[in-house]
Amino acid sequence: MSLAVVGSIAFDAVKTPFGERERMLGGSAVHFSLASSFFTDVHIVGPVGDDFGPDEYAILERRSIDTSGIETIEGGKTFFWRGHYEYDLNTAHTDDTQLNVFGEFQPKLHDDAKNADVLFLANIQPDLQRAVREQCDSAKFVALDSMNLWIDIAKDSLVETIKLVDAVFMNDAEIRQLTGQSNLVKAARELLELGPRLVIAKQGEYGAALFSKGGFFALPAYPLEDVIDPTGAGDSFAGGFLGYVAQHIAEGSELDEHSFRRAMTYGSTMASFNVENFGTERVRDLTGDEIGERFTGFKQITHFEEVAVSYR
Amino acid sequence: MSLAVVGSIAFDAVKTPFGERERMLGGSAVHFSLASSFFTDVHIVGPVGDDFGPDEYAILERRSIDTSGIETIEGGKTFFWRGHYEYDLNTAHTDDTQLNVFGEFQPKLHDDAKNADVLFLANIQPDLQRAVREQCDSAKFVALDSMNLWIDIAKDSLVETIKLVDAVFMNDAEIRQLTGQSNLVKAARELLELGPRLVIAKQGEYGAALFSKGGFFALPAYPLEDVIDPTGAGDSFAGGFLGYVAQHIAEGSELDEHSFRRAMTYGSTMASFNVENFGTERVRDLTGDEIGERFTGFKQITHFEEVAVSYR
Repeated sequence: MSLAVVGSIAFDAVKTPFGERERMLGGSAVHFSLASSFFTDVHIVGPVGDDFGPDEYAILERRSIDTSGIETIEGGKTFFWRGHYEYDLNTAHTDDTQLNVFGEFQPKLHDDAKNADVLFLANIQPDLQRAVREQCDSAKFVALDSMNLWIDIAKDSLVETIKLVDAVFMNDAEIRQLTGQSNLVKAARELLELGPRLVIAKQGEYGAALFSKGGFFALPAYPLEDVIDPTGAGDSFAGGFLGYVAQHIAEGSELDEHSFRRAMTYGSTMASFNVENFGTERVRDLTGDEIGERFTGFKQITHFEEVAVSYR
Repeated sequence: MSLAVVGSIAFDAVKTPFGERERMLGGSAVHFSLASSFFTDVHIVGPVGDDFGPDEYAILERRSIDTSGIETIEGGKTFFWRGHYEYDLNTAHTDDTQLNVFGEFQPKLHDDAKNADVLFLANIQPDLQRAVREQCDSAKFVALDSMNLWIDIAKDSLVETIKLVDAVFMNDAEIRQLTGQSNLVKAARELLELGPRLVIAKQGEYGAALFSKGGFFALPAYPLEDVIDPTGAGDSFAGGFLGYVAQHIAEGSELDEHSFRRAMTYGSTMASFNVENFGTERVRDLTGDEIGERFTGFKQITHFEEVAVSYR
């Protein structure tokens, strides 16, 4: 069983009302890999510069992530993002983006990544996502993430890519922007018409919703009194979701509404840990027991029973 | 078993992207009464002018709501609100508010209302809420709603009133504003410290969350492709919630976390119907079967099962 992810590997500088970090490991592929590594073998693919060193590799390899798909561009510098959050942690304010080696990135997958059961196309230019998708024609489940930038400047390409995947992870505003539909249910159903089996609407502090043909499921975010840094929460969500999907496929089980709902819960579980500390600091040191306990916690905060009521 | 509500009785003029109404029955006490009337006997208390006529009474009395607490101010005009919504239906834009008879309202409860098991203090000035609360000292469960206006101009009074109730219904932004806490979980826990047993955070299209001492429950909004008019959804929510609580008390059952979770689901059920048409047009014609089916629908969209997973 295995999973491949193609996306950014980065250094992040982040400031929130609760502290700051000047340079820490980040990037969508990194957050995704760490979260999914608790469920399946993970191959990470993306470019870095000479400044990406043993300390960064160690964080990934301690979680047994296959780093052979990390391509070092000699003389280049790793993607860099600087951002901050106000007390409204739902909105990231970007202060600086340096694409560096990521600007010329042309993904070439090694055989183990090409042959993965599950493929995640993290938030990169949709033409590149499609080029990766075509290298993985035996993948049993493929998902993508995207963002408002690509809807603004490469919408047609994004739509073409969506037609080639099984699941789309986007936030509410992006789903509305892409479809021009203010009603989220209608908007998600329009995306399903393009071909994907699932649309997952990420809703920040309100959790996430799962749309499938004829199906709907929603899960709140885990109630946390201390949210420190939301950077990477969406990728950790996708990592928990698709990591569980990969394990499920490896067991030979059918993917059905029940399994996707559990995948939603693992996604929400990993996202909830992600925000408890800066960058990867919480997720990379998690234990299986902690994950299992929080999954059970989600059951506890959402469960209710039907009883007979007399209506008047 | 019975329930009393004190609040506004109004004529509303509402325009949304999906249509408009120039003059329809509205007001917090009206929406609340109609929603709760499916579960218990309801006494509505509030002032109206001479312009409030048989057509309006008929809507309430068809649902067997006791209207003897409606006080007609001779020569006065009924409270009037004009508002509109853009495609973002979460935000009401107020175009005109005429308090009329509501400006001098001094609630005096008749005996049936005073002796109700459950009391809802709809969104009125918090001094008035407290005056009503004191008239109902045998009520077994008392709840209030409020709004940003009272936090702005009568915060101390609102806090005093909150100390005297069992449950607070407010939206996320109001809970944050009242406590000065950006984290909703911390903010709700601060309100619980004042004395109420429950804080219910209304979250519009994202549903609602229930905070109790040591407990948490969240429920999404029902996924609707056609949301026509959200006016009154919060009061319909409170009506479903407290209507169920009143029925539960009348059965002699303990109010516990399980019953409050079901109350949340009945609240969400009634709110979901409320928004499907203008004003009271959907809720007033509901059947018990429709309510029961949607309650079951909420179970279907939130249920998931735990299975054994191996963590790596």
